[in-house]
Amino acid sequence: MDKGKVFKYIEEHFEEHLKRLQELVRQPSISAEGLGIKECATLVRDYFRALGCKDARLVETSGNPVVYGFYDAGEDKTLIVYMMYDTQPVDEPGWIVPPLEGRVVEMEPFGKCLVARGAINTKGELGAFINACESIIASGEEIPLNLIFVAEGEEELGSRHLPEFINKYLDKLKEADAVFFPTADQDEKGKVQMALGVKGIVYFELELDGKSWGYGPTEFAIHGSNKAWVDSPALRMIQALSTLTTKDGNTVLVEGFYDNVAPPSQEDLELIEKLAKTFDEETVKKEMRVERFINDVHGKEALLKYLYSPTLNIDGIWSGYTGPGTKTVLPHKITAKVDVRLVPNMTVEEVIPKIRRHLDKHGFKEIKIVQLEEGYGWAKTSIREPAAQAVLKTYREFGYEPEIWPHMAGSAPFCMFNREPLNLPFVMGGIGHGARAHAPNEYIVVGEGGPTGGLTTLEKSYVAILDNMAKML
Amino acid sequence: MDKGKVFKYIEEHFEEHLKRLQELVRQPSISAEGLGIKECATLVRDYFRALGCKDARLVETSGNPVVYGFYDAGEDKTLIVYMMYDTQPVDEPGWIVPPLEGRVVEMEPFGKCLVARGAINTKGELGAFINACESIIASGEEIPLNLIFVAEGEEELGSRHLPEFINKYLDKLKEADAVFFPTADQDEKGKVQMALGVKGIVYFELELDGKSWGYGPTEFAIHGSNKAWVDSPALRMIQALSTLTTKDGNTVLVEGFYDNVAPPSQEDLELIEKLAKTFDEETVKKEMRVERFINDVHGKEALLKYLYSPTLNIDGIWSGYTGPGTKTVLPHKITAKVDVRLVPNMTVEEVIPKIRRHLDKHGFKEIKIVQLEEGYGWAKTSIREPAAQAVLKTYREFGYEPEIWPHMAGSAPFCMFNREPLNLPFVMGGIGHGARAHAPNEYIVVGEGGPTGGLTTLEKSYVAILDNMAKML
Repeated sequence: MDKGKVFKYIEEHFEEHLKRLQELVRQPSISAEGLGIKECATLVRDYFRALGCKDARLVETSGNPVVYGFYDAGEDKTLIVYMMYDTQPVDEPGWIVPPLEGRVVEMEPFGKCLVARGAINTKGELGAFINACESIIASGEEIPLNLIFVAEGEEELGSRHLPEFINKYLDKLKEADAVFFPTADQDEKGKVQMALGVKGIVYFELELDGKSWGYGPTEFAIHGSNKAWVDSPALRMIQALSTLTTKDGNTVLVEGFYDNVAPPSQEDLELIEKLAKTFDEETVKKEMRVERFINDVHGKEALLKYLYSPTLNIDGIWSGYTGPGTKTVLPHKITAKVDVRLVPNMTVEEVIPKIRRHLDKHGFKEIKIVQLEEGYGWAKTSIREPAAQAVLKTYREFGYEPEIWPHMAGSAPFCMFNREPLNLPFVMGGIGHGARAHAPNEYIVVGEGGPTGGLTTLEKSYVAILDNMAKML
Repeated sequence: MDKGKVFKYIEEHFEEHLKRLQELVRQPSISAEGLGIKECATLVRDYFRALGCKDARLVETSGNPVVYGFYDAGEDKTLIVYMMYDTQPVDEPGWIVPPLEGRVVEMEPFGKCLVARGAINTKGELGAFINACESIIASGEEIPLNLIFVAEGEEELGSRHLPEFINKYLDKLKEADAVFFPTADQDEKGKVQMALGVKGIVYFELELDGKSWGYGPTEFAIHGSNKAWVDSPALRMIQALSTLTTKDGNTVLVEGFYDNVAPPSQEDLELIEKLAKTFDEETVKKEMRVERFINDVHGKEALLKYLYSPTLNIDGIWSGYTGPGTKTVLPHKITAKVDVRLVPNMTVEEVIPKIRRHLDKHGFKEIKIVQLEEGYGWAKTSIREPAAQAVLKTYREFGYEPEIWPHMAGSAPFCMFNREPLNLPFVMGGIGHGARAHAPNEYIVVGEGGPTGGLTTLEKSYVAILDNMAKML
């Protein structure tokens, strides 16, 4: 492939390429609320068709459709391109622009940024990858390996129906040599980070209502003065929740919670040693607006904590009157949203039974556990895999020595590809930057000239990754 | 006074009298949200004027105005009529009619009911009392004692600026012999309940945010995976809240919380003995949709618990994502609304310092206490007071032997009248029924013929109370 030709084409088509990203973020696709799913899936399918996929379709599942596309390059090698077209909700206060308008804002020190829900997680990259493929073809070159596009619409709901799709398309997917997830992996200062896996996740609600408990108000919040003789589901739930962790909220007290936690592998320990040398703690904290880590840990210790601790987190909690001023009620119900993150070798299946046993043992049989997602396991790909080496080689070609992370603390459905029945290496990558996923003012840098790559660089890096994959897989 | 004439007039003007109640509930006056306050105050002032009050005005305070009216009957005796024109918010789900439309609904077994926010708490009674006064005059009789109307607009906010009014109008108020609060005191079955006082209340928010803490996210909710190395204000707050009570949520563990709790007086114990004989536990539970009291207590034991326990209640709690489905965030902030009810001889002033000391002692110095109301103390009036005897006599004249409660578990600003500087007896009463104050489908019975009095009976009872007050004060 004459990459120079393709890169020139990409440089000359920045404005049109940006428009695709704007089109994507302007089409809501909030899976938690069922908003715009079908419309966004259709948009993505049309991109696959326009690219020249012979087969491009919405594959129905029990949940949101998976957008499938097969690009037949007539090559021996086949790469699955995993993508997601759904996003988080946009309910947070604090957005500086409407979150679904696709506005481009000048942001120091990056230059032009697209500020929108999905900008970095991950409509920006989806659009950029399509732009990259289209640019290869438009500049007269050929996509160097067959591509199986798998764009799911329930990543933010835990990819609960992706296994249905995988089973349905197993024969086709088995022909692939690796899986690639287009991302944008530079930090605020432009350092490239390469993550080789993810933690797993289980997400559930803990709920207590007077009706099922048999104590407390059963149907509605009653006058607060009745607390003198009527039980409070809220106060009771707080007691239950308080047994889950130590007083600092940081060590989980659920029996057996840490039993299956494996120590870091030799390969991981070597990666961590190297990582600790370049890990830019201050930038990470600044991005999150966090002043201190737990127990004021730093450097390697912080990294080990971040990557090898399973966690129990309260994503949300609510009960009773939450408006302005005072309203004196005894609420009949309280709900907490909880996620548990899994590290090797914890399993998805062990979590809920352990929480249940814990609550029962402490006398909280009345508290219900409502699992909201199937959950997914942790996933790891060795740096020695050719797919990982192809991404690494690309970064070096662009002049970056990446910071390699043995895995991320976040979760993604990679295990569905790199465990049974597919057992494929799963890698992600791309030279670009964005942040504030799941938070207000999510952005992706689109302009060039700042400390990070913009949209043009990101697309070029995808082209080079495809080229290296074709050579190395 | 020829009460027969007045009663006949009331019977013949039911439709117009109902319209006044509808007019009142249709005029929103939600003090927690600042909605419609001025408009409702003006409406009430106009009622006072129309009645013939020589002086009727909005008295400004640092908060919502107090509506003052002086009806000069040219008599020696003067009665303060305490009222409130504000209501709770209408945010609860579950209303069967729009809460501000003043709809009349047939409800078994009561017959016609006005279902609206404020119907029983307490616009229904305010309107009925004005109707009663107007009927006395319209039927050619005379109001038998001077009336000082005091309608406040911040009862639901803890009457925080009522003392300003009282100080401003002290000379006039001091001329009064007693205070009367028009209420509707029948239970679902028609039994009349007479309460001689209230508990006190202190209302505050407990808040923890990462910014003031120095740990956790400081400005917005961040991606939930960061729980591995970033502290959670929510989990930390839960630990703090859990120290406030025993595991069942029913005994307060704040040091010294119960120190000033006085045992029931001899008069109270005598009243409780009698009360236990008629106390209709099942009706009380049914009204609240409560199956069991705390520890399954019954009868006299339940009454003692209800009336003589100070309480700590969570009115509301919220943090992070509270929408549908899953969103994985580590919230930067959590808030709980808490009310503490005071029994004799606890003081308003002791509560916050004790909570503060408790939190500090348990290592939760970072948790902020934001007091939302000034709070008010408990209040009690002896059954031997002439004002109480006048209400009691009225009930008996109507054929009811009331169930006498030494005080209610609810709170109201009665202490502002029956302690320094006024030291006036404070009584409430009225023969009628309503329920679900602070809850959806709040109602007042307006039709006659059911197990309770309707609007006509309620107005007649107010006329008779005024008559008896004039004779007995």
